[in-house]
Amino acid sequence: MANDLPHIEATLPSPAFLNVELRELAEKLFDQFREMSFDGEGISRETYGPGETAAMEVIERLANKHGFVTKWDAARNLIIRLEGREPDLPAVATGSHLDSVPQGGNFDGAAGVIAGLMTLIAASSNGPPRRTMELLVLRGEESAWYGGPCYFGSRAMFGLLTQSDLESTHRVSGNALAHHMAECGVDLTPIKAGQKLIDPDRFHCWIELHIEQGPVLIAREKPVGLVTGIRGNVRHRSVVCRGEAAHSGAVPRWLRHDAVLAMSELLMRIDEHWRILLEWGEDLVVTSGIVGTNPDEHAVSRVPGEVSFALEYRSQDTKTLTSFGSLIASECKQIGEKRGVEFDLGEAVYTEPARMNESLVALLAGQADEAGIPCEVMPSGAGHDSAIFANSGIPSAMVFVRNDKGSHNPHEAMELPDFFAGAEVLSRTLYGAANSSEEMEK
Amino acid sequence: MANDLPHIEATLPSPAFLNVELRELAEKLFDQFREMSFDGEGISRETYGPGETAAMEVIERLANKHGFVTKWDAARNLIIRLEGREPDLPAVATGSHLDSVPQGGNFDGAAGVIAGLMTLIAASSNGPPRRTMELLVLRGEESAWYGGPCYFGSRAMFGLLTQSDLESTHRVSGNALAHHMAECGVDLTPIKAGQKLIDPDRFHCWIELHIEQGPVLIAREKPVGLVTGIRGNVRHRSVVCRGEAAHSGAVPRWLRHDAVLAMSELLMRIDEHWRILLEWGEDLVVTSGIVGTNPDEHAVSRVPGEVSFALEYRSQDTKTLTSFGSLIASECKQIGEKRGVEFDLGEAVYTEPARMNESLVALLAGQADEAGIPCEVMPSGAGHDSAIFANSGIPSAMVFVRNDKGSHNPHEAMELPDFFAGAEVLSRTLYGAANSSEEMEK
Repeated sequence: MANDLPHIEATLPSPAFLNVELRELAEKLFDQFREMSFDGEGISRETYGPGETAAMEVIERLANKHGFVTKWDAARNLIIRLEGREPDLPAVATGSHLDSVPQGGNFDGAAGVIAGLMTLIAASSNGPPRRTMELLVLRGEESAWYGGPCYFGSRAMFGLLTQSDLESTHRVSGNALAHHMAECGVDLTPIKAGQKLIDPDRFHCWIELHIEQGPVLIAREKPVGLVTGIRGNVRHRSVVCRGEAAHSGAVPRWLRHDAVLAMSELLMRIDEHWRILLEWGEDLVVTSGIVGTNPDEHAVSRVPGEVSFALEYRSQDTKTLTSFGSLIASECKQIGEKRGVEFDLGEAVYTEPARMNESLVALLAGQADEAGIPCEVMPSGAGHDSAIFANSGIPSAMVFVRNDKGSHNPHEAMELPDFFAGAEVLSRTLYGAANSSEEMEK
Repeated sequence: MANDLPHIEATLPSPAFLNVELRELAEKLFDQFREMSFDGEGISRETYGPGETAAMEVIERLANKHGFVTKWDAARNLIIRLEGREPDLPAVATGSHLDSVPQGGNFDGAAGVIAGLMTLIAASSNGPPRRTMELLVLRGEESAWYGGPCYFGSRAMFGLLTQSDLESTHRVSGNALAHHMAECGVDLTPIKAGQKLIDPDRFHCWIELHIEQGPVLIAREKPVGLVTGIRGNVRHRSVVCRGEAAHSGAVPRWLRHDAVLAMSELLMRIDEHWRILLEWGEDLVVTSGIVGTNPDEHAVSRVPGEVSFALEYRSQDTKTLTSFGSLIASECKQIGEKRGVEFDLGEAVYTEPARMNESLVALLAGQADEAGIPCEVMPSGAGHDSAIFANSGIPSAMVFVRNDKGSHNPHEAMELPDFFAGAEVLSRTLYGAANSSEEMEK
């Protein structure tokens, strides 16, 4: 793969933990996945679908070839095991998912699985570590196929799938998730009963490598990111501001209750609070991605009587989410009184943030430093399976790899040198943790 | 008609210029129009349609019964004439239109025609005035029937109809305006040639009575308004703000180019300028009646890359419109630089303001004062035929009558006592002007 962007050339230490043969193996695997899953536009591997299974089987065959024990859990996640010298100790684990969005890219999910396989192979050739090392090949991480809910594989693993998840319907077939899971050979009995398929205490730690889905590493000119937390979010799908429609020529300013101006004032106050809270050191992003007046009523020469808009805010910190929600409610009230309008915030959907384990992030930073790989310490704004691991009580961390053009599209542009840099940090840290005699602080 | 709102009871002087018989006549005419034109929901009298013609013929028959000369011009406007003692002097004129919007109210347009007829009858019974007095019953004032263009009757009168007007198509029949005009007996030859059907110099002045289409007189608790000018306007049907779409979780504030926040900032800056310009004494209203992100692209968790919105501003003052336009362009540029977005203001449609004649407004104010009728001096935000008269060089003015619930809907709520108060101010002033030996200042 040609690298046209000189600034993203990563400097790998010599000797690297992941040698040239492993890098060639990774490159071939990416090529093979691309070929298997190309849909004419991009990559499509459906959540709990045959393309996902086929990719998992490619990994399984390679793992067997390298002598690892493999097994499928009741949710048909694939677990690949390099047994440690003290197999009763909690295991060191890595992994990611192998499904993709429709017309997605080749790296979202797959990069973490391939980096994990490289890690296990490199570790085994270095002599078996003290702790068992595991690669978890998860499925069903994407929300695109079943209209919103996601992390099916990891949530099933920890007994967290709900009846509503199982009933959510496929965007094309219209069949329920449970139907497609069963088609993939899933045993639904323990999943419906909410049983854990694996005990979280079996894990010493979990580290997932994933491409960055935003532009921060590109902007910072660093190949690798170390994630401090996965942002939770609060989503108001439809806030409605109600004022009073009126003739735009005949009604003077002092008699107006303009819903669009009221919304604009709210968004500007929120924007200003956001700016200040960032300077204050809070982690926060705020977005109003959808706005619209009602086409049945609106007109160029009509003072808008109503407007609806979405509001989403994300933070790694639960308290920030709660306090920001109160702030928004109080601004709505104030602007409502001032402008004679009413804001109806509607229903809010809440997703919990997940904190990454600080000691684990420090270990990653130490290994990156030793290998001379520049890292950016940063939050993850997008959600990941790692949030499920972290919130199940497993010390967790994530390694991001620089990636241009976002994810969930065919134009994802992770460069292999960056991937190798990220995988190097991951594998060194995991191998170090597997040989460590210390327990992780939770 | 019962008057349930004690605060709108108008105090008419005794003896009033318009006596009780005339008031009964007016009430009957409103009832007759309502009955003739009720469409099941409201009042419908199509622009250049049979319902409009029928209402005009009702007025013509009454005029003939009272001994006035009537004639139809080439555009089939009806002209009713009370010949003065010096018939070669420029005439004093009043009038309004008799078409309505679909499912409109009973007073928009008709009130001015009925008040004009009352005025001529009262004037003739007081003995012929020095100048000829005319009632112009206009047609085709509303924009609702032909998708935008309007003032067809008055514009035809002054040679201002364009080919594009004549080709505009009826919302239901799909036929061109020219077709429906011909059906009403219009002689299209002089109209297509842009010939004036009447010489503006033939008019000493023009005063139109009309219901107020906004809530100012209700809010000010005054029955009558005296119009200082008819606001012109600048309309941008679709301003587009282009930023950059991005993942709402993964892209931090400093890398965003959020189109919705940029639009909100623009609207807030415009709103603040508007507030200050009003304190500065300018006449201005500003409206963004339509806003919307693109449903094909937008999502709750996507930083909006684009938003479109309408922008309309109105003023009685051409200079205010021009300067406000420059201010908006400069704010777009500044916000664009600050936020890394681009505003495309698109095409602007300009409608010229019309100033009412100050001496004429002073005459109206003097007569109202003498009759003890409280008046509000105010702009007209909505457009009227009077703008065509004023911009054709005829000293013009308008009398507004308090009206609840706006216009262009079946719920128009003008109360008859307010109408009589407005008609009293109109008729006294017109009769005074008809007997005056002074020329109007233009």
